[in-house]
Amino acid sequence: MTSQRLFDLILERRSYLCVGLDSDPALIPNHLLAEPDPVFAFNKAIIEATREYCVAYKPNLAFYESQGASGWESLRKTIEFIREGGNSQPGNTSAAQPNEPSHFILADAKRGDIGNTAQQYARAFFDQLGVDGITIAPYMGADSVTPFLGYPDKWAVLLVLTSNPGSADFQMLSVEGELLHERVLRLAQTWPGAERLMFVIGATHPERFARVRSLAPEAFFLVPGVGAQGGDLAALSRAGMNSQCGLLVNSSRGILYASSGTDFAAAAGEAAREVQRQMDALLRECIGR
Amino acid sequence: MTSQRLFDLILERRSYLCVGLDSDPALIPNHLLAEPDPVFAFNKAIIEATREYCVAYKPNLAFYESQGASGWESLRKTIEFIREGGNSQPGNTSAAQPNEPSHFILADAKRGDIGNTAQQYARAFFDQLGVDGITIAPYMGADSVTPFLGYPDKWAVLLVLTSNPGSADFQMLSVEGELLHERVLRLAQTWPGAERLMFVIGATHPERFARVRSLAPEAFFLVPGVGAQGGDLAALSRAGMNSQCGLLVNSSRGILYASSGTDFAAAAGEAAREVQRQMDALLRECIGR
Repeated sequence: MTSQRLFDLILERRSYLCVGLDSDPALIPNHLLAEPDPVFAFNKAIIEATREYCVAYKPNLAFYESQGASGWESLRKTIEFIREGGNSQPGNTSAAQPNEPSHFILADAKRGDIGNTAQQYARAFFDQLGVDGITIAPYMGADSVTPFLGYPDKWAVLLVLTSNPGSADFQMLSVEGELLHERVLRLAQTWPGAERLMFVIGATHPERFARVRSLAPEAFFLVPGVGAQGGDLAALSRAGMNSQCGLLVNSSRGILYASSGTDFAAAAGEAAREVQRQMDALLRECIGR
Repeated sequence: MTSQRLFDLILERRSYLCVGLDSDPALIPNHLLAEPDPVFAFNKAIIEATREYCVAYKPNLAFYESQGASGWESLRKTIEFIREGGNSQPGNTSAAQPNEPSHFILADAKRGDIGNTAQQYARAFFDQLGVDGITIAPYMGADSVTPFLGYPDKWAVLLVLTSNPGSADFQMLSVEGELLHERVLRLAQTWPGAERLMFVIGATHPERFARVRSLAPEAFFLVPGVGAQGGDLAALSRAGMNSQCGLLVNSSRGILYASSGTDFAAAAGEAAREVQRQMDALLRECIGR
């Protein structure tokens, strides 16, 4: 997906919400456990309920890999379901047209390995799973990231400043006059193919948004950490939005587990809709669109 | 596996070799492609040929994940095969006794994610796949690593100084009077459960071994980068060995692809045996055992 198409979707849906499919078999509603593939049944219902209110889905690979081969299969089916327009009712008029993907799909995998291995991962995620982006860890440097940058309209989403408490351990260290995450953000933009990079900036660091935006004015930021982790949507949007929005704000637990009963899908839809309403107002306020 | 058991295996086999199972479907010998599971057939033959000469196996997850659900199945069978003693001949007298694993199994996954996700990965790798260790990336800090440190006799193998060219990009930066990888190595040892950490130190940095050994005198180092990447086994062993050896030196491509013909297993066995002979001499030279 091109960044222009992503911005078009944002304007169309009045939303820059990414729904994180951290679908934990231990947390999905009990009544789904009788399904042949409970995780897929859960994802399907969540996607049907939220698709009008979000522009992206982000399955976190850990929750699928922890189920072994069957988890991998749940993930494949989930991606296929999103690609088919995210609606199991044939004839639904809002289903996306062919060749116009309705949602950006991001594999939250946080991979990072040496060149020949990174190539394998790039093939696995882009060619075989068919996602639009994959999250990548920066510690191993350029040759662990650039293999992901050779796929047209595919994105490597580099960890820069994460939302968790441990982000303070290394990312905030001073290195030669700047902070480590600032160095990561600056240096990565000099690598070949850097125009296919997005960056992870955690919502739990609202005071850092203006600075990181100044270091990467055009890039999209993937922003985890609102909801359960406590980030403030309005504050980070005001500091971080650019003229093409430039933000994908993720919510996982706050939407997936809005209710643990048989009404979980309706509750997820309502939670996503509430975020979408706030985003509608923030788009108007911040970029007048 | 305890570190004492690992050291016992090293003395028994006169080897601290780890064979990296980077089993690339595009590189395995053609005649195996007719097998129902070519990657497993390849691994099985490699394990049978090398098991006497190594103490550890390290499947790199990228090569399995890139095959989707079937790759996950090849991996599961490979781990089971190593656990069964790595020999398909029933009655073979060198098969390991129950409860005495014959090899340390390390999932080279380079994972690193926030707490609740790291828990999922720990369960997937330790409880379900049943490996002894998993490689972890440090960038996200303490709470991305400590969930792996709560499993008795299981190991988190933290990236400190990697073998690839990109290791220079961030790992060698000066942070407040030391290098970033030194900071990672020092700080990680203060985390709860740190006695279950090993550290990745690439063979391509022979000049750094004495220093990193002084910062972590007791720990095991996993050392990638000999063979195809050019690291010098003798030099790094002389600078890095401690009284319990403290080294697991990995070779992947130099062993797996020693021959691309029908004699690939014999050639792999011979390549592993050659490394084992050098290690035998180095154990004698460096620690007199």
